[in-house]
Amino acid sequence: MIDQALLDRFERVSGHPAHPWLKRGLFFSHRSLNDILDAVEKGSPFYLYTGRGPSSEALHLGHMVPFVFTKWLQDIFDVPLVIQLTDDEKFYFKDLSLEECKRLAIENAKDIIACGFDIKKTFIFRDTDYLQPMYTNIAKILRCLTVNQVKNIFGLDLSSNSGKFFYPAVQAAPSFSSSFPHIFGPDSNYHCLIPCAIDQDPFFRMTRDIAPRLNLAKPAVVHSKFFPALQGSSTKMSSSATNAVVSAIFMTDSEKDITDKVNKHAFSGGRATKKEHQELGGDLKVDVPYQYLRVFEFDDEKVKKIGDAFSSGKMLSGEIKKELINVLIPFINAHKEKRKKVDDALVAEYMKIRPLQFKGKKV
Amino acid sequence: MIDQALLDRFERVSGHPAHPWLKRGLFFSHRSLNDILDAVEKGSPFYLYTGRGPSSEALHLGHMVPFVFTKWLQDIFDVPLVIQLTDDEKFYFKDLSLEECKRLAIENAKDIIACGFDIKKTFIFRDTDYLQPMYTNIAKILRCLTVNQVKNIFGLDLSSNSGKFFYPAVQAAPSFSSSFPHIFGPDSNYHCLIPCAIDQDPFFRMTRDIAPRLNLAKPAVVHSKFFPALQGSSTKMSSSATNAVVSAIFMTDSEKDITDKVNKHAFSGGRATKKEHQELGGDLKVDVPYQYLRVFEFDDEKVKKIGDAFSSGKMLSGEIKKELINVLIPFINAHKEKRKKVDDALVAEYMKIRPLQFKGKKV
Repeated sequence: MIDQALLDRFERVSGHPAHPWLKRGLFFSHRSLNDILDAVEKGSPFYLYTGRGPSSEALHLGHMVPFVFTKWLQDIFDVPLVIQLTDDEKFYFKDLSLEECKRLAIENAKDIIACGFDIKKTFIFRDTDYLQPMYTNIAKILRCLTVNQVKNIFGLDLSSNSGKFFYPAVQAAPSFSSSFPHIFGPDSNYHCLIPCAIDQDPFFRMTRDIAPRLNLAKPAVVHSKFFPALQGSSTKMSSSATNAVVSAIFMTDSEKDITDKVNKHAFSGGRATKKEHQELGGDLKVDVPYQYLRVFEFDDEKVKKIGDAFSSGKMLSGEIKKELINVLIPFINAHKEKRKKVDDALVAEYMKIRPLQFKGKKV
Repeated sequence: MIDQALLDRFERVSGHPAHPWLKRGLFFSHRSLNDILDAVEKGSPFYLYTGRGPSSEALHLGHMVPFVFTKWLQDIFDVPLVIQLTDDEKFYFKDLSLEECKRLAIENAKDIIACGFDIKKTFIFRDTDYLQPMYTNIAKILRCLTVNQVKNIFGLDLSSNSGKFFYPAVQAAPSFSSSFPHIFGPDSNYHCLIPCAIDQDPFFRMTRDIAPRLNLAKPAVVHSKFFPALQGSSTKMSSSATNAVVSAIFMTDSEKDITDKVNKHAFSGGRATKKEHQELGGDLKVDVPYQYLRVFEFDDEKVKKIGDAFSSGKMLSGEIKKELINVLIPFINAHKEKRKKVDDALVAEYMKIRPLQFKGKKV
């Protein structure tokens, strides 16, 4: 768990106030984040690694969370970042052609680039383009893993296609800086910090178990909670679910889409009648608009005011939805503007195998 | 089985007498060799694919068989050839470091090049260098194979490392010409003929099963028998067995090594005493020197004469060994001379990703 002591240390070492998502517990747990802070204190460099499985044309709000957070980490620590687009994973796990997964990866890269990553410090790669430089590490990872282990870690069964058993090594490999000789030089062993959603933890727990056997640094991880679907906090927003259209707000949605989705589909913590609501107050724990506001409204003061008003019954369900809509529309519109400027040529630049700005000294 | 009718057709279509190894049944079985002959008749092109698992520093006599035969096929059909060096396979299956497997692959490439393959038509690749261009096909193959299938086809168990389950797709991929866009252009689908030892058949039976699901041509295969160890015809000559030094004759052996190994270790079909031998005759079926002569002495007349003399008891065990030594020494010496001329630069040329001379039209 990320506790106050760790947050304090994070602020001290980074010289920056913690991100609202850290303070609010959206990023709530970690593995050896202290190792990264140790490295920063010692002036040893590290790098960031995150990724995306390209199973949908557009990204939704939940997909933005790791990227927005990673962008912030890149800015405050001034470090290189590698972003894996797992077109192969989606091919093994979804009913999509490989060609379609490759195409979706490029479309998704545009949304990722629109988050504003520094091109001098960011390398985006698609597995089907970049397997080669990772294969030495992948092979070493594969040799450390029995098929039984992969089966148990990921809950696979033996009638699954064998790509599913191969893939975990592909997601593990970028945790080791030697997978990126063009950035870190040959045989490097820099620390890696992985911001990701909690459901990705099995991959990196596995990777951390293997690392010592390969004489490589264990990657550190910070986990975010699931971003809830419009239907409520026990569900994960999914772009590929069949009901995706109404369970998720996409970064391509129009103002009308956003307004309609929030008003019609966002699960409300409001009471059955206005009278009851004013008497008992709204239930913040289940109110989706409030939960979304806690993610996308960075003004602590404002979030507190809205929360107090809703839970005390002074603010009605329709009003808190309006507050959310007023936050989401500019956020999504700004993203759309930035995405419009990302063309195939810019994607190709981010995906080009090239050195990045990196202040690392050989470790 | 390769029967006389097929041999006749082979000679007719190729315009060349069949290789002694075809006539003598060293290459004894096949899968859809007729498809290749059909292709040749129609003037459609095909290519050859063979390989080597680099688990030893030097090649032994048995290793030479597929390469010598493949060189002959390349010469008579004038077609491109791809040679896979499976450094990853040996890493998954043997107690060797990946770095060592990579190094052995380069050493083995020198012996392979010494066989005289036409550099304008031959591409040699190491899996750890060339996984990328194959990965699209590998991924499609992986998705066609359940883990249970891989387990059963190759007799693996689930406590094996998962590299062993991944590797079959890597050996399958070069059977499809689209794995070599630099030779055959993008999305090609040329016929492939694979000369290999019979123990490799499970890989290609599997590949042939998958091919129709990928809309790709099934590779054709010609199988050689095991090349027997010095100890006798029921064993396979192995370079990595612990008793390799005396079970195999290496292409690096000196004249004295060769002489000693044949004289001391080659299992003899001769009788216990000279008298008995002259009465009963030698047993050609178990006599290792005779079996080796049937491989490396291409003069049919001479092989027959030696066989008759030994089986009738006129030729003694020491004499047939002498005949073999007289064949092996020039064969191995000639190889050593050619290998001496292969330096790292020449290896790099063969292994460079580049177009080959290829008369193919798009299929």
